[in-house]
Amino acid sequence: MCRWIAYSGGPVYLEELLFKPKHSLIDQSLAARSGETTTNGDGFGVGWYGTGATPGLYKGTQPAWSDENLLDLASQIKSPMFMAHIRATTGTAIQRTNCHPFRHGCWLFQHNGVIYDFQRVKRDLVLAISPRLFPEISGSTDSEIMFFLALTFGLQDDPIAGVEGMIGFIEDVGRRHGVARPLQMTLAIMDGQTLYAFRYSSEGKSRTLFYSESIAALRQYFPDVHTFSDDARAVVSEPLGTVENAKRVWIEVPESSAVVVAAGAVNVTALRPRAPI
Amino acid sequence: MCRWIAYSGGPVYLEELLFKPKHSLIDQSLAARSGETTTNGDGFGVGWYGTGATPGLYKGTQPAWSDENLLDLASQIKSPMFMAHIRATTGTAIQRTNCHPFRHGCWLFQHNGVIYDFQRVKRDLVLAISPRLFPEISGSTDSEIMFFLALTFGLQDDPIAGVEGMIGFIEDVGRRHGVARPLQMTLAIMDGQTLYAFRYSSEGKSRTLFYSESIAALRQYFPDVHTFSDDARAVVSEPLGTVENAKRVWIEVPESSAVVVAAGAVNVTALRPRAPI
Amino acid sequence: MCRWIAYSGGPVYLEELLFKPKHSLIDQSLAARSGETTTNGDGFGVGWYGTGATPGLYKGTQPAWSDENLLDLASQIKSPMFMAHIRATTGTAIQRTNCHPFRHGCWLFQHNGVIYDFQRVKRDLVLAISPRLFPEISGSTDSEIMFFLALTFGLQDDPIAGVEGMIGFIEDVGRRHGVARPLQMTLAIMDGQTLYAFRYSSEGKSRTLFYSESIAALRQYFPDVHTFSDDARAVVSEPLGTVENAKRVWIEVPESSAVVVAAGAVNVTALRPRAPI
Amino acid sequence: MCRWIAYSGGPVYLEELLFKPKHSLIDQSLAARSGETTTNGDGFGVGWYGTGATPGLYKGTQPAWSDENLLDLASQIKSPMFMAHIRATTGTAIQRTNCHPFRHGCWLFQHNGVIYDFQRVKRDLVLAISPRLFPEISGSTDSEIMFFLALTFGLQDDPIAGVEGMIGFIEDVGRRHGVARPLQMTLAIMDGQTLYAFRYSSEGKSRTLFYSESIAALRQYFPDVHTFSDDARAVVSEPLGTVENAKRVWIEVPESSAVVVAAGAVNVTALRPRAPI
Repeated sequence: MCRWIAYSGGPVYLEELLFKPKHSLIDQSLAARSGETTTNGDGFGVGWYGTGATPGLYKGTQPAWSDENLLDLASQIKSPMFMAHIRATTGTAIQRTNCHPFRHGCWLFQHNGVIYDFQRVKRDLVLAISPRLFPEISGSTDSEIMFFLALTFGLQDDPIAGVEGMIGFIEDVGRRHGVARPLQMTLAIMDGQTLYAFRYSSEGKSRTLFYSESIAALRQYFPDVHTFSDDARAVVSEPLGTVENAKRVWIEVPESSAVVVAAGAVNVTALRPRAPI
Repeated sequence: MCRWIAYSGGPVYLEELLFKPKHSLIDQSLAARSGETTTNGDGFGVGWYGTGATPGLYKGTQPAWSDENLLDLASQIKSPMFMAHIRATTGTAIQRTNCHPFRHGCWLFQHNGVIYDFQRVKRDLVLAISPRLFPEISGSTDSEIMFFLALTFGLQDDPIAGVEGMIGFIEDVGRRHGVARPLQMTLAIMDGQTLYAFRYSSEGKSRTLFYSESIAALRQYFPDVHTFSDDARAVVSEPLGTVENAKRVWIEVPESSAVVVAAGAVNVTALRPRAPI
Repeated sequence: MCRWIAYSGGPVYLEELLFKPKHSLIDQSLAARSGETTTNGDGFGVGWYGTGATPGLYKGTQPAWSDENLLDLASQIKSPMFMAHIRATTGTAIQRTNCHPFRHGCWLFQHNGVIYDFQRVKRDLVLAISPRLFPEISGSTDSEIMFFLALTFGLQDDPIAGVEGMIGFIEDVGRRHGVARPLQMTLAIMDGQTLYAFRYSSEGKSRTLFYSESIAALRQYFPDVHTFSDDARAVVSEPLGTVENAKRVWIEVPESSAVVVAAGAVNVTALRPRAPI
Repeated sequence: MCRWIAYSGGPVYLEELLFKPKHSLIDQSLAARSGETTTNGDGFGVGWYGTGATPGLYKGTQPAWSDENLLDLASQIKSPMFMAHIRATTGTAIQRTNCHPFRHGCWLFQHNGVIYDFQRVKRDLVLAISPRLFPEISGSTDSEIMFFLALTFGLQDDPIAGVEGMIGFIEDVGRRHGVARPLQMTLAIMDGQTLYAFRYSSEGKSRTLFYSESIAALRQYFPDVHTFSDDARAVVSEPLGTVENAKRVWIEVPESSAVVVAAGAVNVTALRPRAPI
């Protein structure tokens, strides 16, 4: 299990969301409140859109709480759209190629959750990945396979359809192998313009996911911070801030749904997973 | 804050104490019960006496829970006397030279605790280290300074006197700088023949420390393990095993005292800290 | 390109072969003489047979020349059969799961060389790996795929046949993809009893490989070292020792052949690569 | 021995100087031409001035040639003044706190060279560091001690005088300890406005140092790169680019002198080392 955050809005220094809030993502790496595991110390990563053609990536295999480079970079790098992830492995190796976010062209992807009985279904999943994408697989996680399956099923043309196809296919393969509840996930996906977030699980009891509705709420929550623009929105696997404030600021994403954030507008739609024929 | 273990007895594979017990040291790296910090993920180390002239050392800066090398080495290395340590930094850098145990000739040393206001007193402490030992300082922790002070004050001739001198000196320097309670510590020190453990704090409320009295107790505690010899003894900063068993097997080391384990005999004596003149 | 060493004989400390010789394997990590690349700083590993059921592994992603743990372990661990490897990546990530040796049950495997146009042929190679072995793939190298292919083609029953099948299959797949010279390799394989070494390349111009014929030669070469038993043999990708001595001590393995070392006897046989039907 | 680069001019992406040139700094980490050691694989660092109050730092202990984060960051971070360093240790540990550049407030500092017999003179050098600065010492290198001595001797008010005092003091202490030629160095020092570079050695035979005189030269050298402003200047421990071009573009810094680069103007002055009284 892992924790993550995704941001869209006016450019802010990464530290505004990664380090400064109470119960920030970095705090959660040492002690998460609502996750399956309290410690998320098996690596981390941040992906951001800057001035380059592709988004930047900074990942490490050590715990995020003790990485001095991250502290410095987060106070130097400003971005209008970024995501960050802290990892608690569900069994695969702790290595940079297993750290989120994953990148393909201008797309970033990160995941919290698990493909159950992954070693049993992995071969069938890998075989379904487009041969054109196959050489790009560089790690050994279920998450990276999910990304390449979603890409195979059209994520770049229609992100929601790509993810629905990926979910449907993994559930199909899992059930063929006798796995009752094949998938558990929250996802963040970005292309530099739009932020997509997903909450889904085969059992209908998904990992938590929240979004911030308006800048008024964000500003109330971060009273000392005036850097957020009117269209600033964040999606998080666990509320930042004090427990009391959290309820007022963060809105839970419903089961089996997608959240689309573009230019400050938030749209929530139901997911219809189906295996590509 | 940190957690540690020290063993003396018939040769056992390191894994018998590091990995196999319930609530083992490696489990404690993810979730300690009685420490100041629950996560001890800022590096680790193990030092053992084998067939070489000096004890072996294996240390890493990543969390112990995810180090695959440690898992392998602990199942291959057998030793009659060893110590192991998992670190939660009190502020100094996460680097191998700050990981315990520290080694000087045939001596090993590890520490749980803190010199309060260390940055304020560090210069005076460093100046008191024997110029002959000075070039050996390679890290930046309070713990390594404690070791070199104890060596300066005669640890190799009389370990208890060396430690008492170190405690007294640190308290003197601290109080001269206005630090009310300068020192908090449990220590394990070994030379390959004898295991010394210490519990002390300026405030008289020291970090926990326990020892196992007899092999009967250890055997009762590890029913499946027949590898322990009659003279096997362990000292730990936090009881291994289930909470219920722990009370029956582990004896708390009294405040301000030293435990000396040699050939299966355990001797507890009171500490008399005094600054060397 | 990489450098490696393999040893079979009376138990010696690893340091006798890894650190003590002139132009030792560790020296070669900084400056190899006859390799394609002079620096082999992209990780390392050592696998050895001790008292446990499976061989031990110690691997790291940093350069071998600066790993203080390796220095200590090599002076503590004694073994009658071991292999060690220093890596210069041909493009895949620097991560522990890509470091040699690879292990499967009691088998160890290490490789110097390359599958040319690996990203083009990888998918077909991976699909040929036994579905039973598939979940064990944890890295992204050509070398690990070679190991799993050899296992798929019977390495555990007949190591030479398994390797011949692997070579033949990789050449078949490569040529089907238009790769003129698909494979370049030297290999060391062990099961704790027998040491197998292989030299082969599609172009008939393989990476160098040498073995030491007799203990008399080894003793002449290491005049100060009396620890080697009468049946001690080593196989190396590059001669240890001074350039002058090297010619007298080390015998070049012929192109396209296997070297089998068991109980001090060395047997060289020709390879007959053929794709399994 | 190490290699380094320092830049002052219009904002450029770090990659323009770190990765893109032929025989770039990153190439030099694998194979330097004119250094004492060909491989500089014992860590690296880059420090840059961005929009924050203090310069940013990114450092790592692995070789620069294989760090994927550095590759990404260098294509995202743009700066008008930065320095970068690749390390080949002269004996001290490979850890982040020993990697250059070192930072103090708005100042950055990096060094190529060595204090000879450092372990013999270290204690006397450390004692001369201002007690106010003492707690900031976090590594174990001669280079960091040089920085703190220069700060102690007034670097922030007059960088050249601070460095002259540091040189004089180290030579004094060295000679008192019987070290014939105590110091060997090239340095880069910056405060965000001005770039200072130094070349000096007690023996009068210093490590190489070069600067680029005019943008015309730089443009001739990097024909494909139009990003450099008219006031762009670089100082390097080893010429970038092809061997032929190097002679036309790079001017050797004379022995025992300082180079001051401010707003495109380059000033070379002689050094007058003297120990502070």
